[in-house]
Amino acid sequence: MDTKTDLLSHHISQQFNNELEELRNNLLSMGGQVEKQVSDAIEALINADSEGAISVCEKDTDINAMELTIDEECSRILARRQPAASDLRLVLACTKASTDLERIGDEAAKIARFAISLTEQGEAPKGYIEARHIGNHVRQMVQDALNAFARFDADLALAVAKEDKSVDREYKSATRELVTYMMEDPRSITRVLNIMWVLRSLERIGDHARNIAEYVIYLVKGKDVRHIGIKRIQAEVFDQ
Amino acid sequence: MDTKTDLLSHHISQQFNNELEELRNNLLSMGGQVEKQVSDAIEALINADSEGAISVCEKDTDINAMELTIDEECSRILARRQPAASDLRLVLACTKASTDLERIGDEAAKIARFAISLTEQGEAPKGYIEARHIGNHVRQMVQDALNAFARFDADLALAVAKEDKSVDREYKSATRELVTYMMEDPRSITRVLNIMWVLRSLERIGDHARNIAEYVIYLVKGKDVRHIGIKRIQAEVFDQ
Repeated sequence: MDTKTDLLSHHISQQFNNELEELRNNLLSMGGQVEKQVSDAIEALINADSEGAISVCEKDTDINAMELTIDEECSRILARRQPAASDLRLVLACTKASTDLERIGDEAAKIARFAISLTEQGEAPKGYIEARHIGNHVRQMVQDALNAFARFDADLALAVAKEDKSVDREYKSATRELVTYMMEDPRSITRVLNIMWVLRSLERIGDHARNIAEYVIYLVKGKDVRHIGIKRIQAEVFDQ
Repeated sequence: MDTKTDLLSHHISQQFNNELEELRNNLLSMGGQVEKQVSDAIEALINADSEGAISVCEKDTDINAMELTIDEECSRILARRQPAASDLRLVLACTKASTDLERIGDEAAKIARFAISLTEQGEAPKGYIEARHIGNHVRQMVQDALNAFARFDADLALAVAKEDKSVDREYKSATRELVTYMMEDPRSITRVLNIMWVLRSLERIGDHARNIAEYVIYLVKGKDVRHIGIKRIQAEVFDQ
């Protein structure tokens, strides 16, 4: 791809090119694993699969280790290669994005822990359909944010940032329904609260996917678009 | 202070010294404002002060702007000064810590929004004593994490990291009590859930304070202590 060629592999030092390429690959591979953690956690929840949930919790350690590796690579490149312009932005975007990916991993592990409690409590409570729906939505956002990173695609990143609003709406509406349900059947409160925390974690995964999308726009366009609202982000993306 | 002299102001270029000092000052000043946001949000909640709560929500924009300024400074220093060793760690710690401070600001704004809802709903619900208690606890953690940053004090940073466990315990016990209360009086569910979200935000503020403390240890000791557990952090802090 043109943009990719533009943003990578333009150094006389082949070694430096390789280091940047490896950093990016490591981030994407961490992203792939994190995305899998999210979908495995949702599956474990829906299918009352305690073993699957335990495996998600265990794998969180690998995700944590990947964050440290990526940050180490970033420090090393900064110290030895003194990158500038788009290389510097790539390194900074990777160090920021790895933190968000790690937090998505944490949320997946939390969902898995709630899945274990819910399985023990037996009988599927309300909210599973919503959890599956919002879960698929945010998993797709994570996937798209990573694809945007892989292809240096600011348009796709913008689309991810936009999706976050719709996840927030879905989350609010699901939460309202669960509150009504708790009021009607107070014995269900503990179980319904567990599913509510699951939805909360999913909503936060959407936030993190949006953060990653914003780093992609920063990386590609050189503009920091955090905290400025979708309309202004759109203007920045189409401006160049 | 010895450590401070060691970690700062050792450059032949006075301009570079000034830039690093200013970056650090900006981070600490952002931290001071964020800490105030946390205590103002808790006060607004406890005193049913809607105006105070609205003011916290409004000031969140300033906090967001400070994050962008700090990250811009970090990029500029990385591109122009090509820092190494402890200077590089300082810049990286600042860019990471500013993100955590911004998220603490977000949580304070969320607490303020719940304070507004709770004030409208009238009549103080259960959980205010716990909110005040955990609120003071995490506010102190934020303050200590910032002091540790200001003084390059790894011991204080370690103490902050340790406190996080005790906040988690307080949070869990408060949540359990609120669940019992909801079951006893289902009409209170909406209000009690609001206070529960407040406690959740406070617990997250504790997590972010711990993150900042870990960056201080990285900055001072050169060791990345994330995800390794308190005992091993302790070993790293006392090892050198």
